[in-house]
Amino acid sequence: MTQIKLFCPATIANLSCGFDVLGLCLDNAGDEMIVRKTDQKGIRITKIVGADLPLETEKNVAGVAGLAMLEAYELDFEPINFGFEIEIYKHIKAGSGIGSSAASSAGAVFGINELLGKPYSRKDLVQFAMQGEKLASGNAHADNVAPALLGGFTLVRSYAPLDIIRIDSPEELFATVVHPQIELKTSDARSVLKQTVSLKSAIMQWGNVGGLIAGLYTKDYDLIGRSLHDEIVEPLRSVLIPGFDLIKQTALENGALGSGISGSGPSIFALSRGKETADKIAKAMSHVYENMNLPYEIHVSKINPDGVRII
Amino acid sequence: MTQIKLFCPATIANLSCGFDVLGLCLDNAGDEMIVRKTDQKGIRITKIVGADLPLETEKNVAGVAGLAMLEAYELDFEPINFGFEIEIYKHIKAGSGIGSSAASSAGAVFGINELLGKPYSRKDLVQFAMQGEKLASGNAHADNVAPALLGGFTLVRSYAPLDIIRIDSPEELFATVVHPQIELKTSDARSVLKQTVSLKSAIMQWGNVGGLIAGLYTKDYDLIGRSLHDEIVEPLRSVLIPGFDLIKQTALENGALGSGISGSGPSIFALSRGKETADKIAKAMSHVYENMNLPYEIHVSKINPDGVRII
Repeated sequence: MTQIKLFCPATIANLSCGFDVLGLCLDNAGDEMIVRKTDQKGIRITKIVGADLPLETEKNVAGVAGLAMLEAYELDFEPINFGFEIEIYKHIKAGSGIGSSAASSAGAVFGINELLGKPYSRKDLVQFAMQGEKLASGNAHADNVAPALLGGFTLVRSYAPLDIIRIDSPEELFATVVHPQIELKTSDARSVLKQTVSLKSAIMQWGNVGGLIAGLYTKDYDLIGRSLHDEIVEPLRSVLIPGFDLIKQTALENGALGSGISGSGPSIFALSRGKETADKIAKAMSHVYENMNLPYEIHVSKINPDGVRII
Repeated sequence: MTQIKLFCPATIANLSCGFDVLGLCLDNAGDEMIVRKTDQKGIRITKIVGADLPLETEKNVAGVAGLAMLEAYELDFEPINFGFEIEIYKHIKAGSGIGSSAASSAGAVFGINELLGKPYSRKDLVQFAMQGEKLASGNAHADNVAPALLGGFTLVRSYAPLDIIRIDSPEELFATVVHPQIELKTSDARSVLKQTVSLKSAIMQWGNVGGLIAGLYTKDYDLIGRSLHDEIVEPLRSVLIPGFDLIKQTALENGALGSGISGSGPSIFALSRGKETADKIAKAMSHVYENMNLPYEIHVSKINPDGVRII
């Protein structure tokens, strides 16, 4: 095998209570990528369709993640005298808050790993994909690349050492994600955060994280819904997202288990039980942004159990 | 049935990362209690053996919890023209940090509920037992009374509304708890807490809460161990407990999955896989306090799956 075509899924990080630690993988929103083995050493980004992103390997998240992996491979296994070409077909908009850079980083390392004969596990690959995230945001976070690679829900329990727990999604769980087409800079989304939080809020937050994890394991949809609260970040960040309160309220009124900011925004997600409810929420959310004359994209997706996949 | 004899278990609250939300139930450390139906209305504490605690109903946690329950019963069901007597045989020392007041509060409401024909579920009873905790500490917390009533592990996801999740313990999990015989006032243990915490520490804490819950559901003993860290409270409180660092280090060196402060202290717990390791830890902990000439009590217990039980 010298070439592989991939679906690189979008992801929702944070999930209300799980700021910086939780994420989930979407099933039908994502990019495509072709990774090809070549005689020339190193990594070349040969084509990017659908986005204005740099082709230079060191400036592209897929390139940087791939290079981090090749460097590790040569230390862990053996020197290689070949390289890889990557074509990226972007469907996830950069800055949408559903893991655009993570999809590319995860896809690159997954594809290269396949063409190398799978020397690394999907979990091993997270650390390499994180280097792409570091290029994208200055912070080697794992809360998007982990679900993109592993599928389902993921919990980043710790970074030092990296400890990621994958959790199956209850089968009837669906996500609705709406992306209002505004620019929300990650730096702005980050600048509103406070470096300290009240102990009381923190306790409520970790109670909810515990409840959400318990709800996932017991497939208790109501408990999942009751736990989808964010005491700490949402109150600060949601003001940056036009119509946030109304979108969230609309989602809940239409049967969502819970709703919140996807990643650092501006996308807003809702989780629900069953596709019918998720579709109903999508329609209602659409009406809100149509009434505001705000362009938007919307996705309804089951939770992707597998992560990046070969197509 | 007009009389019932109960075992009222000791409990470990907080469990490192789960400050104010997590707790577990011990199996062979606890009080005994006799609850008797009488013709006289109200609740009387007729005997307390093993502790110098008030007999006046309104000043006794068992009395207060029982009264809260009777008041609710008369609103929820029907007026009653009888009452209850309670005898308490204390084995758990007050102020030990393993839920002495919770054992009495939980026992009283459980016993009365049995004699009333079980109008309430064990989960319903938590709210009444919390009133005993309010008398004991000024704060109607549930992190000891919930495991005392429900057994296993409990997560208090929320207080408003009260939302408690019970989680089975992995079968091979054992607790070792050592109680150094010093007085540590709850008010002192509370005064060292800071009302704000860094966002960074809070994120690590809720990552660990998520990891601990995941570890319990998947019976992943290593994950349970990796998650038993407290970024926030232990560094502040442990200085109040003589020998804390050495006891914890000794527990870990002898195979504990994790170790930390039980409740607000001064007891120190360790969790381990298998009774043999728990016993070994108990022996090693004992040596530490013997070398310090500090009197102590020590318990080794499996996790009690049932909570308060009829004996």
